[in-house]
Amino acid sequence: MSTEFEMAKRVSYSLHPIGVIRSILKNRSEAPRQGSEGAPNAVLEIQPAYLEGLSRIEVGSEIIVITWLHRARRQVLKVHPRNNPSSPLTGVFLTRSPDRPNPLGLHRVKVLEIAANRLTIGPIEAIDGTPVIDIKAAIKE
Amino acid sequence: MSTEFEMAKRVSYSLHPIGVIRSILKNRSEAPRQGSEGAPNAVLEIQPAYLEGLSRIEVGSEIIVITWLHRARRQVLKVHPRNNPSSPLTGVFLTRSPDRPNPLGLHRVKVLEIAANRLTIGPIEAIDGTPVIDIKAAIKE
Repeated sequence: MSTEFEMAKRVSYSLHPIGVIRSILKNRSEAPRQGSEGAPNAVLEIQPAYLEGLSRIEVGSEIIVITWLHRARRQVLKVHPRNNPSSPLTGVFLTRSPDRPNPLGLHRVKVLEIAANRLTIGPIEAIDGTPVIDIKAAIKE
Repeated sequence: MSTEFEMAKRVSYSLHPIGVIRSILKNRSEAPRQGSEGAPNAVLEIQPAYLEGLSRIEVGSEIIVITWLHRARRQVLKVHPRNNPSSPLTGVFLTRSPDRPNPLGLHRVKVLEIAANRLTIGPIEAIDGTPVIDIKAAIKE
């Protein structure tokens, strides 16, 4: 098994951004921790090469946007949840901290407007310039 | 803007697996479409280097596991939802199809057992050998 882990360490997968977030939020320090905590709407600009992947989208759809949290620190494994020093140090995998080994962000949002390759979505706490990696149908769970 | 898109095309991000799924499901053809559709429990084997990221995990926790759907076809942009030829072709970003440009899988599961670096979780439709990329706290939405 240890050999298998050694091999796994050398494996990596390449993500290519399919779009980008355009937001009035410019820095991590201004961003709410979750979309539901007072975040603004934003524009998701899809790269033209991937536009076909949105075929049949409608205003009002609920989608899950997966972002690449490009400002995250990837070496962090434990945090004080919600950056509150009185909360005990907790593994990042039990939190929504942006700091984590593969810094993916999950954002459940509503589609508010569609204009060519620009979707107005929200509310969303991702900052301006955040790369978008994937979009999925939201499923009631 | 077109220059910016040209630049974006050359950008890529590297994901490193933090673990792997061990399941009785061995092929895509055996796997249910969603965990809630009769999927089995499985073992999530965490790489020892990332174990600290699970600090304070408890049996009964609800987590979101993000996988890399390693058997997916990344060039697919439209599918017949649920592989039903009578459903109209739809952009992959409005579906949960594993085939998509960056084939990430989202799985909301319960932690059933914890033994060193092996978590029993479920139900989950991911097949045996599926790389795990990230784990997050589930948030009620």
